[in-house]
Amino acid sequence: MTASMSPDELEHALREIGSERYHDKHPFHHLLHTGKLNKGQIQAWALNRYIYQSRIPIKDASLLARCPDMAVRQVWRQRIIDHDGAPGSEGGIERWLKLAEGLGLSREDVVGERLALPATHFAVEAYVRFVREKSLLEAIASSLTEMFAPGIIRTRMDGMLANYAFVSRETLAYFAHRTSEAPRDAEFALAYVKRHATTREDQQRVLDALTFKCQVLWAQLDALHFAYVSPGLPPPGAFVPDAP
Amino acid sequence: MTASMSPDELEHALREIGSERYHDKHPFHHLLHTGKLNKGQIQAWALNRYIYQSRIPIKDASLLARCPDMAVRQVWRQRIIDHDGAPGSEGGIERWLKLAEGLGLSREDVVGERLALPATHFAVEAYVRFVREKSLLEAIASSLTEMFAPGIIRTRMDGMLANYAFVSRETLAYFAHRTSEAPRDAEFALAYVKRHATTREDQQRVLDALTFKCQVLWAQLDALHFAYVSPGLPPPGAFVPDAP
Repeated sequence: MTASMSPDELEHALREIGSERYHDKHPFHHLLHTGKLNKGQIQAWALNRYIYQSRIPIKDASLLARCPDMAVRQVWRQRIIDHDGAPGSEGGIERWLKLAEGLGLSREDVVGERLALPATHFAVEAYVRFVREKSLLEAIASSLTEMFAPGIIRTRMDGMLANYAFVSRETLAYFAHRTSEAPRDAEFALAYVKRHATTREDQQRVLDALTFKCQVLWAQLDALHFAYVSPGLPPPGAFVPDAP
Repeated sequence: MTASMSPDELEHALREIGSERYHDKHPFHHLLHTGKLNKGQIQAWALNRYIYQSRIPIKDASLLARCPDMAVRQVWRQRIIDHDGAPGSEGGIERWLKLAEGLGLSREDVVGERLALPATHFAVEAYVRFVREKSLLEAIASSLTEMFAPGIIRTRMDGMLANYAFVSRETLAYFAHRTSEAPRDAEFALAYVKRHATTREDQQRVLDALTFKCQVLWAQLDALHFAYVSPGLPPPGAFVPDAP
């Protein structure tokens, strides 16, 4: 192994991975943000991404469940609260369902999960398992895609509002909340890995965890693109949009 | 729940799932078998499918590890032997590596696994987990895709030999062996589920297990098709063929 990096070098290496592998570079997102998708394709995106959204509190709870550091737990639990919400106070999952309904999907179809692509399930399951089974450092590092989220969220909100008549600001409330939550979450996780990944081996684990997470996000878009854009072949049993 | 099916009705329902969802219907296989792929695309197929092949003995060993029925274990262990082989007697995995090498891939690239598509890893991992964690009945039922294997294997061998100058009978030795192994394995597993799945609930679990396994196979081809055929966008870090 080579010598270990300074904390700032580690951050630089993480940002390099993001600039090559974060899913803002994926052609599906380019189409989504520039008005090139039809309503059915955007429905497919929302329906599939619900699988990912719905597993976020699960993966954060497994992280919490094996984190011996009370101070970390005190901060990390906010992610669960943000996503699950509370009676009378909707969280991220409920906002995602509103987004899906705003696009014309039935809540039952989304929550039922059966119409989502198997590849979506496989990728999301791999992420949940990763957080459950790898080291705490790697679990925390795998959340670092949030470092790159603010840019894509702004692009998405502006692009979708400008380009799709059927998308309203209310429909996109999920993203409005994420613009404040994601940077706060990312900042904490980044500080954690910079402080705790001091050997070259641990630093490599941190970098690999971020690469893995980028693959999880990218693979979901590959599957969407394949099934609903090009060549456009939904696998047997998957969601088929009613109308373009 | 509705009434339970007779064993033959269950078999019929299983065959229905195969006729709708088995991956012989996937366009990638159609292209592969009719000479429409180039060497680089076939390399990508072999390199990715190695991930699946290499996990077969792992999943069969986990099945064995929690099977209380000695008679079942005595039969099932043959799958591990067939795939792993023995010193001086190559098994299915070694034959798959020979196939990959026969197509011009380096053994290191294939065994290294890093160039395989993340979606391949996610799908194969989902299968291994399924067999490890679901009931023994469901684990056995998930192997029933072998019922539909003989047809596709013959089509593949004939089609590949007829259409690709760079494919030889030696390269395809893996499939020649599978023509005898797959029907024997499928027959045993089918008899097992017909005998043990007697309630409607268990029969539904068996059907769902086969559907799941079809999804695992189908999703692998979706990912290959997306990355290497249409639109042809390998994700960052994945195998890129040298030449068409």
